[in-house]
Amino acid sequence: MKLTKHNLSEKTNQVYDVIVVGGGAGGLSAGIYLQPYLLSSLIIDKGKARSLWMQELHNYLGLPPDTPGKTLLKQGKEHYLSVGGDLLNAYVEEIIDEGETFLVRVKVGRTNSICVEFRAKYIIAASGIIDHLPALEKMQNVFDYAGYNLHVCLLCDGYEMRDQKVGVFASSESAAQVAFSLGWFTPHITVFTQGLFDVSSELRQKLKEHRYSLVETPVKQFLGENHQMNGVELEDGSVINLEAGLISMGSRYHSDYLENLDLEYQGGNLITDQMGRTSHPRIFALGDLKVGMNQVVVAAADGAMSATQIWRDIRRQTGAKRNLSNLAA
Amino acid sequence: MKLTKHNLSEKTNQVYDVIVVGGGAGGLSAGIYLQPYLLSSLIIDKGKARSLWMQELHNYLGLPPDTPGKTLLKQGKEHYLSVGGDLLNAYVEEIIDEGETFLVRVKVGRTNSICVEFRAKYIIAASGIIDHLPALEKMQNVFDYAGYNLHVCLLCDGYEMRDQKVGVFASSESAAQVAFSLGWFTPHITVFTQGLFDVSSELRQKLKEHRYSLVETPVKQFLGENHQMNGVELEDGSVINLEAGLISMGSRYHSDYLENLDLEYQGGNLITDQMGRTSHPRIFALGDLKVGMNQVVVAAADGAMSATQIWRDIRRQTGAKRNLSNLAA
Repeated sequence: MKLTKHNLSEKTNQVYDVIVVGGGAGGLSAGIYLQPYLLSSLIIDKGKARSLWMQELHNYLGLPPDTPGKTLLKQGKEHYLSVGGDLLNAYVEEIIDEGETFLVRVKVGRTNSICVEFRAKYIIAASGIIDHLPALEKMQNVFDYAGYNLHVCLLCDGYEMRDQKVGVFASSESAAQVAFSLGWFTPHITVFTQGLFDVSSELRQKLKEHRYSLVETPVKQFLGENHQMNGVELEDGSVINLEAGLISMGSRYHSDYLENLDLEYQGGNLITDQMGRTSHPRIFALGDLKVGMNQVVVAAADGAMSATQIWRDIRRQTGAKRNLSNLAA
Repeated sequence: MKLTKHNLSEKTNQVYDVIVVGGGAGGLSAGIYLQPYLLSSLIIDKGKARSLWMQELHNYLGLPPDTPGKTLLKQGKEHYLSVGGDLLNAYVEEIIDEGETFLVRVKVGRTNSICVEFRAKYIIAASGIIDHLPALEKMQNVFDYAGYNLHVCLLCDGYEMRDQKVGVFASSESAAQVAFSLGWFTPHITVFTQGLFDVSSELRQKLKEHRYSLVETPVKQFLGENHQMNGVELEDGSVINLEAGLISMGSRYHSDYLENLDLEYQGGNLITDQMGRTSHPRIFALGDLKVGMNQVVVAAADGAMSATQIWRDIRRQTGAKRNLSNLAA
């Protein structure tokens, strides 16, 4: 059921089998596996899944290629609620390992917010990442185009940019390297450093060899209309025409709540085994938060695997039929 | 484009980037990633994907839980053709490693069949498995119920069998162990050996402790109507009532065509790395054919990963923009 400030008190004194942090593709897929395994689950979602941005999921098997990300998430939430899962819109502040269970501290509501605690035997960290965007004075100007023709994923949208005049907005020397992979799709590339880093002579040389342009003057604003970006205006007033953009500025990982749990990371990504288990035997991670490809269908498969492994764990410990009446209603 | 006996000759003298053997969930997902990476691909499908059986895909994120497997496959084929992929209904007889390329020998058509050859740089083995079924005198009697309430996948359909009277149809002592996992969902279990193997005293004892029944007399036929099995008639004329069945008789792996390629297996499953690469650097495997969970969403993610890794390989070798005019039309 959908939990709100008003009905959640009945759920705070039970122990869930699994609390899933994040209601994006990975978390929802985990949920629609967990419930039919007769495991009780709560998905806590703060409503900012990366796939919400996506105007078209080009590559998700089973859905037409013009399906918006939000359609997938809506269907997934309905599916999850229909199999009896609990869903709460809230922000997870902290998770404390109590031994047999985890204590999950949650803030509900943006105004008049209340703090509540839930408990679970297992945690699935499915809270994903969000892309860093160019920090302009008017951020709305960035949001107007991001997810339309101002892309954040070369794998997903490279094809959309084929033979187009593309601006790569990079935040570091290594982030700028994506320009050379983008070169598979188009030769018309301009790299914008936005004045954020010094360009080495090696990179200058390599860009020159590929005949890519380099712009170091900061960007003032994106130009365009109806969500179609068609160029940038620089701080010095000059204008550069573009047909698409690719942002390569790294990501913020939504994993602060895991801070005190001493998990193993590679870069910002959680290290897991094939089934999604982290270095803590009862914490799983999936999708963009773990090492691997950042694709919706991969996150969905990760959810299926984490849920299945947790079911195997609990089934083997219990060694008997789950008593249906013990299940969270 | 859809290839047929009549239009395939124009395709036999080009080298595809990738030939995908199998047009199930994994193969189609690979295809809808490969084409937008500007790689030419041919999917060869003999039209017997395991998911075709599935009357309802309960657990596939993004589709309502009553979506038939064939709906997913139909959408996937349309999607793949819409991004310019080639698709051929045919049977792959043999693949020969020629060094830079693979030669793929194919038989097209069941009557007046013709043999043709295609070439590709990479192979994706996505031909899956098919479950062994009880070998009754009238196989149509098995097909009447398989995929309805005569299930082949505990993970997928355990929930459907909760608290039901279920018959487990096993072909070996180890295959019969699934009964104890099924015990998570229901205590009303009868194991049918169909007279195929001798039951050890350990298994007898364990079944007794769990209060599961054991029937060793061979099955004559399934009983029921409208695809709903409601029991079995044994060879000796006795009748046992059931509400559902779970077949655990192992699988046939559709991988004969890989026979001469000296790949590494674990049991019947191909061993791959995280991205699906087998022990041959230019052969990838996915879905049920490789080690891992046999789930539609996992196969779909495998397809995305194999396609992406092949793109990375080719992009790094080529080191330059793909010339669009070189692409297979």
